[in-house]
Amino acid sequence: MSDKRTELSELGEFGLINELTKSFKNQQKSTVYGVGDDAAVLERDEENVTLISTDMLLEGVHFNLMYTPLKHLGYKAVIVNLSDIYAMNGTPEQITVSIAVSNRFPKEALEELYEGIQTACNIYKVDLIGGDTTSSLTGLVISVTAIGVATKNNVVYRNTAKENDLVVVTGDLGAAYMGLQILEREKEVFKTNPDIQPDLDGFDYLLERQLKPEARKDIIGFLKELDVLPTAMIDISDGLASEIMHLCTQSKLGVNIFDEKIPIDPKVATTAIDFNMDPATCALNGGEDYELLFTIKQEDYEKIKGNPHMSVIGHMTDNAEARYLIDKQGTVIELKAQGWNHFGK
Amino acid sequence: MSDKRTELSELGEFGLINELTKSFKNQQKSTVYGVGDDAAVLERDEENVTLISTDMLLEGVHFNLMYTPLKHLGYKAVIVNLSDIYAMNGTPEQITVSIAVSNRFPKEALEELYEGIQTACNIYKVDLIGGDTTSSLTGLVISVTAIGVATKNNVVYRNTAKENDLVVVTGDLGAAYMGLQILEREKEVFKTNPDIQPDLDGFDYLLERQLKPEARKDIIGFLKELDVLPTAMIDISDGLASEIMHLCTQSKLGVNIFDEKIPIDPKVATTAIDFNMDPATCALNGGEDYELLFTIKQEDYEKIKGNPHMSVIGHMTDNAEARYLIDKQGTVIELKAQGWNHFGK
Repeated sequence: MSDKRTELSELGEFGLINELTKSFKNQQKSTVYGVGDDAAVLERDEENVTLISTDMLLEGVHFNLMYTPLKHLGYKAVIVNLSDIYAMNGTPEQITVSIAVSNRFPKEALEELYEGIQTACNIYKVDLIGGDTTSSLTGLVISVTAIGVATKNNVVYRNTAKENDLVVVTGDLGAAYMGLQILEREKEVFKTNPDIQPDLDGFDYLLERQLKPEARKDIIGFLKELDVLPTAMIDISDGLASEIMHLCTQSKLGVNIFDEKIPIDPKVATTAIDFNMDPATCALNGGEDYELLFTIKQEDYEKIKGNPHMSVIGHMTDNAEARYLIDKQGTVIELKAQGWNHFGK
Repeated sequence: MSDKRTELSELGEFGLINELTKSFKNQQKSTVYGVGDDAAVLERDEENVTLISTDMLLEGVHFNLMYTPLKHLGYKAVIVNLSDIYAMNGTPEQITVSIAVSNRFPKEALEELYEGIQTACNIYKVDLIGGDTTSSLTGLVISVTAIGVATKNNVVYRNTAKENDLVVVTGDLGAAYMGLQILEREKEVFKTNPDIQPDLDGFDYLLERQLKPEARKDIIGFLKELDVLPTAMIDISDGLASEIMHLCTQSKLGVNIFDEKIPIDPKVATTAIDFNMDPATCALNGGEDYELLFTIKQEDYEKIKGNPHMSVIGHMTDNAEARYLIDKQGTVIELKAQGWNHFGK
């Protein structure tokens, strides 16, 4: 090792992956697409490809066991990976789950975790086909790999959006992040006075979005029914702004996003204001929504117009340097991705 | 959660996986074989199946960075998974690598880790196709998933050994374990007096087996050339005794293993004696050898006789309760698997 020392916080998660893998060359003909999208794409048979996606969740970084029921955690760990397969316009079929766990956990706690995993498997019709179980000297670690299938002609990548394509987002954004704020607030209250019951009343939607999110399997079905093949797609795990930047960078395009078009649930808006936060900022940078962000050809607009699950929030432009957020008054500001830099200072 | 509390150390790693996954049912027709072998087996095309294997390595549990160079660690993390694919008589083609790492690591340290990963990818001709990079509040975590291919007719499982089949092991055993003993001894010396240089002279073979093991890709080739299709196979990661027990349990058979037939390198024997250990015990329970253990039909014996890479060490019997180790004097003792219970007390 040379004496040079580059701090990880200087790079961020995406910069780091690119740096570490840039000199790797693919040599297997079965590798269709490797690092760089929601899932890797591998040859399968004449009609189909196999999709592979993997994610690792760590206690203290991605979840806090103080307010995360193990059953929900198991469920969410699966969902996070299935979402990546849907984001390729594919169907997940199998998962592997590896866990590292401290001796302080009794078997019964792990059974709860696996109950959540099994519930997700049943609902999304995926099989648990393997994994690894080992001890951890510290916190709980969960690593999930999802395996899916897509027809060759219908795989949707991040790097194939075209100029003038419409930018569409599913569901609403920012709720998972506001759910986390509620949980963190009640944790602080509890730490100050353990006798006070947490005040979670009325926040069901936000808490569910944080603790037990769903993957948008339904959207993949709707798109097929509507005969709309997105030109590019990504799932929203790190926040809308960050994911839009990925689409732009990989498709070498710019974007205009209209602030007021971003779908925000009223409860997110009122809660954000209670927390002295801007609702749009929560939606843009909150993360963990597991909604889908995709682009469609202008001519497909009529097919999705009025669909309650989809909102058109902008369009792609030919200037790769120009990523703009435009507000009601027409003020144009540069879109910035705060996202989630786990290596942040 | 009920009030019942079952300690993980009561179950061990294998008992735990079985307990946690026993109520899962496969529902995808593309799942050929799920939990329970070295790798899962999935439908691919008319001739081939896809193999999936995954392993997670944690600092302080599976490796100690005090004496493990990061380049070797990256290499080994890949090898461990490729070994599982070979153990199905398959060929690995891709891997995903997820890492969780503390901010205390500079980028340059991770580059070393990835150099080792890349070296393994080049030598074994596998593509790195994805992964996840996140921060860890404590130690380094590496989770690797390997994806491979095998022809449908040639996949070899653990549960298909037959009575009277010969038990064969590749290479020699116990060296990785003795390498670990040497490293642990020198670590203790260093802790007492940091000015003393570690005394690793003459232990190259043992250290290499511990720090930079290889997967037996060559054996898969030899078996094909020799026209021998094993009746059952497993890789030796947790120690010969433990793996033999898996073959027996899954094939519902017993075994006779002849102590003196177990291949042990002379350096392992002399080093074990220096450490007041029994060489055979090191070979039986040492672990991390990444050799292959397989069974063949009696009629295939002539094909492998005298092959320097393969040793016949015993045969399968019809009494599932009888797993015996027989020494030179003909003394029969029950085979016990100490293996590696990471949840040990």
